[in-house]
This record gives sequence, structure tokens and C-alpha cells, in this order.
Amino acid sequence: MFDRIDHIGVAVEDIEASLELYRDAFKMTVAHREIVEEQGVEAVLLDVGENHVELLAPLGPDTPVGRFLAKRGPGLHHVAYQVSDIETTLTDLKATGLSLSGEWPRVGLRGALVAFLEPKATGRVLTELVQPVEVH
Amino acid sequence: MFDRIDHIGVAVEDIEASLELYRDAFKMTVAHREIVEEQGVEAVLLDVGENHVELLAPLGPDTPVGRFLAKRGPGLHHVAYQVSDIETTLTDLKATGLSLSGEWPRVGLRGALVAFLEPKATGRVLTELVQPVEVH
Repeated sequence: MFDRIDHIGVAVEDIEASLELYRDAFKMTVAHREIVEEQGVEAVLLDVGENHVELLAPLGPDTPVGRFLAKRGPGLHHVAYQVSDIETTLTDLKATGLSLSGEWPRVGLRGALVAFLEPKATGRVLTELVQPVEVH
Repeated sequence: MFDRIDHIGVAVEDIEASLELYRDAFKMTVAHREIVEEQGVEAVLLDVGENHVELLAPLGPDTPVGRFLAKRGPGLHHVAYQVSDIETTLTDLKATGLSLSGEWPRVGLRGALVAFLEPKATGRVLTELVQPVEVH
């Protein structure tokens, strides 16, 4: 069902300070950087083999990541699994009784199709599915 | 430096309930299951492509995972990156000023060599390095 872990999402207060860890100390390559105004977040994607780390910094306090930081502090935010056909996967998951968090899929970073599962159904692990434009 | 994400660690209250999600709904294969008395934890490792999900249930409240659950509730606990030579990696990381959490490496699940970085230095992301017995 899932091909691999696509990425882990990490909530951070300061992208540049986090890049000193992930890019400079951990030697991960920055693959993509984007400000997503509609989600109130700046995201940086770094490569770890075929997986990624997604750094998420809020554009302000009244945003999903801003509220996460205020409540829990910086740290692991979500995990995303890569799938080759998100519509089929969502249909299969719904058949097991799992519900989605809102209307999905929608377009995420780098044009990928993404969906989030309802955290109540996933042991409070915010779980994303990602169908990249080019599966790699 | 890191070959891939080795696994994400998930703190859970009930292994069997979690297996209904990860094994039965997500169709991940259980690769390993072990009670680690010295760490006060039962661990189940599931395959996701070349990556893994590690479910961690405490053997009692006065254990590291038991205290994590009491403080933060169930959810993402740590991320582990796979390396081929953990001693060299630790030497390189120490040279950048990163410190380790305790004395490492030690032997983890399935005979792997593992080490944890000091969370203060990693933006509060509990970060593990894993050198598997057989790199896969």
C-alpha cells in the first residue's frame, strides 16, 4: 500500500537555524523551498536517500504550525507515506473504516497530491499520504 | 552521511490496537517484535519499503516511553537515520559541535548499533542513528 516513508515533517521556529543542523551538520541537500501562504507556512524539503525531511516554520502565530509550536513546542510534526495511486489508497483505507481529515486529495509541495488522515484514527500521529508528480 | 530514514518511532499505549492500524489497515508487514526489559519497552518493527515504523509500548509507567506518554500522550516519538559506519558518523557529528545523549553506540533492536543525539541540539527532535547488522 505504501512504497516508503516520503518524509517526516518537523515544526521549527527558525528555518535558518534548522538548516545549520540538517543541511550543514547532517549534510542533507536542500531539494525545495517554498512559502505556502494559504497554509501560513514556509517549507524546506531536504533529501535523505529516497526519503526527505520537511522543515515547517509558521508565517505567524495564528497558523496550523504556529498553533502547534505554541502548544507542543518544536519537534516532530507529521509523517508522510509515499503512494503511487492516492485515489485507490484512499478508497482502500476508507473501506477499513479510517476517515480523512477534510476533503482530499489536494495539491501539496512540488505539485504532489496529498491527503491527511484523521489523527483520532491514527493514534494521534498526524499521517499524510503523498503521490509525487514523478515517483522516485 | 545518512543513507535513508531507518524508521520513525511511535509511542503507543496498546500494541495490539496499533497493529490493527499499521498491519491490518496500512498493510505493513511485521518484521520483528521484542520485549526490551532493560529499556522497559515492547517494540514492534514493521516494513514500509526499505523504511520501518517502530511501535513502542511501555512495560510500565516509570519507563522512558511511559513517561513520554504521561507527558505528551501517544504519537511520534523519534526519527532514526540509517548509516553504514556509525563510529565515523559520530566522530563527524561531534566535530560540528553536536553532542550525544549518553555513552554510545550501544546495541539496539536486531543487533544494530544505535546512538541518540542530545535533543537540545536537534530542535527537540529525538534523533537516533542506526547501523544495521546487515545494511538493507
